[in-house]
Amino acid sequence: MPVAGDREVVIKVAAAGIARADTLQRQGKYPPPQGASDIPGLDVAGTIHSVGNGITEFAMGDAVCAILAGGGYAEYCLTPVQQVLPVPQGWSFTEAATLPENLFTVYDNLVTRAQLAAGETVLVHGGTSGIGSMAIMLAQALGATVITTVGSNDKCDACLTLGAQSAINYKESDFVTATKRFTEGRGVNVVLDIVGGSYLERNVAALALEGRIAVIATQGGRVGNLDLGVLMMKRGRIMGSTMRARTPEEKGKVAAALRKNVWPLLPGKTTIRPIIDSCYALRDACLAHVRMEQGLHIGKIVLEN
Amino acid sequence: MPVAGDREVVIKVAAAGIARADTLQRQGKYPPPQGASDIPGLDVAGTIHSVGNGITEFAMGDAVCAILAGGGYAEYCLTPVQQVLPVPQGWSFTEAATLPENLFTVYDNLVTRAQLAAGETVLVHGGTSGIGSMAIMLAQALGATVITTVGSNDKCDACLTLGAQSAINYKESDFVTATKRFTEGRGVNVVLDIVGGSYLERNVAALALEGRIAVIATQGGRVGNLDLGVLMMKRGRIMGSTMRARTPEEKGKVAAALRKNVWPLLPGKTTIRPIIDSCYALRDACLAHVRMEQGLHIGKIVLEN
Repeated sequence: MPVAGDREVVIKVAAAGIARADTLQRQGKYPPPQGASDIPGLDVAGTIHSVGNGITEFAMGDAVCAILAGGGYAEYCLTPVQQVLPVPQGWSFTEAATLPENLFTVYDNLVTRAQLAAGETVLVHGGTSGIGSMAIMLAQALGATVITTVGSNDKCDACLTLGAQSAINYKESDFVTATKRFTEGRGVNVVLDIVGGSYLERNVAALALEGRIAVIATQGGRVGNLDLGVLMMKRGRIMGSTMRARTPEEKGKVAAALRKNVWPLLPGKTTIRPIIDSCYALRDACLAHVRMEQGLHIGKIVLEN
Repeated sequence: MPVAGDREVVIKVAAAGIARADTLQRQGKYPPPQGASDIPGLDVAGTIHSVGNGITEFAMGDAVCAILAGGGYAEYCLTPVQQVLPVPQGWSFTEAATLPENLFTVYDNLVTRAQLAAGETVLVHGGTSGIGSMAIMLAQALGATVITTVGSNDKCDACLTLGAQSAINYKESDFVTATKRFTEGRGVNVVLDIVGGSYLERNVAALALEGRIAVIATQGGRVGNLDLGVLMMKRGRIMGSTMRARTPEEKGKVAAALRKNVWPLLPGKTTIRPIIDSCYALRDACLAHVRMEQGLHIGKIVLEN
């Protein structure tokens, strides 16, 4: 049983999200940051079990969800209080477990970093992943137009249902050609990318004047060729980031922005709603990882206690 | 003799700046943007000779300087009024010709795009060029610490005199090692780069957490390798831009910011002062280009009428 230190809380875990990073960690390719639990699991929902010194934000029994540096696949987990948010009204624990990792990552990248604005167009690679489906919904909520890439026609349909205006099966069409056609030659204002190196040149090619690329994973390799001449002519920007390695204070800033700007949108479950692919018991975490690695999921895979 | 159309002015040119882009244009490698004069010359200082319809900002005889899309190597040049600023108090025409192209480019990149803040450290490649010397001075004015790279020990001395805290002779030292040592391992917050492809990996390596690279020229090639994994871990950003191809309205926004934030600093010639390498008569423009291409200049090369 973890013990809460200063400004920490212990959460009794009701549901834990599965992230692709968890499968990489299991394979030894993504070690937890220094000081983090070596148990996988980057987000949970549950109730406050105990609190350390200096906690005024939450009390025992409160329904919360949290982004973790690790340790979510468990009955109890420990986290700095800055990383905790209330379960939105009308959301179950399982539903709330779809929120933290996806919303922290998507909000920080689309809004804070890439500054996606109403009326702009965003290209979301991998629109049916947990991150991708959240990006489609948040971009919609911001008043942006969403184009997305996925690997099957079924997934295209799922993305259109989620609110994307255009879905490209990358196995059948070149996304640069498709996005140029959709935007009448202008290109997209923002790209949210999980592919990395192998998509870099094409992401730059798909970009509009003053466009921004936010890279949050490198499933297609880390290294790519960058033509800085093209980037200059487009006055483009390429940014990368991770969430897990940030300090509790840095995560707390994202949490504060979410609480102010996104949490009020959640109770109605309208634009941003829980997109759950499947649920597994905690003891079946291995099956959940198989499901993630098959790549057939649409939305978040959740473990339940 | 050019004729001013709506919202345009004709300037009687007293002095015109030489930019590296001019030498590229002469070699056929940097064609002027559509609609621009095919005469070289991106900045001038002189007096308003005539004005078109709708001009209230300036009157005939006013001492002005302007950033141009081309046409500066001339007795008279035409420009949209948005691109014109007054000659600062106490600056001669020759001195004022050092300002437009350098300040528009450096301010837009360091301040508006890379958001260089007081207390941060910036690495300026090519610190003795017109752009480089202006970047050292503007960064100083912003309260930033400047590290710069140049190709000789004489140029190192010149940069230290300009206000750089550290100057690296790139022929003798690796700038990544030197900047890491200077910043006690943290790296630099901003890089202002004119080298491009061949420096890309090392620029990323020199970057601090949340660092920004602003690329404004590619003298070392356009294409480089980018390790997005490193960029992600550093939460870094790479941005590129050009100034010349922007619309008069876009240049007008930069001019308005300069007028508000930089013009008040100029009359004293203290932190930001004219750094003139050499002056040539307009008919000796070819000699000015030879001087530029030899790469021995420190500061701006100016043509005088």
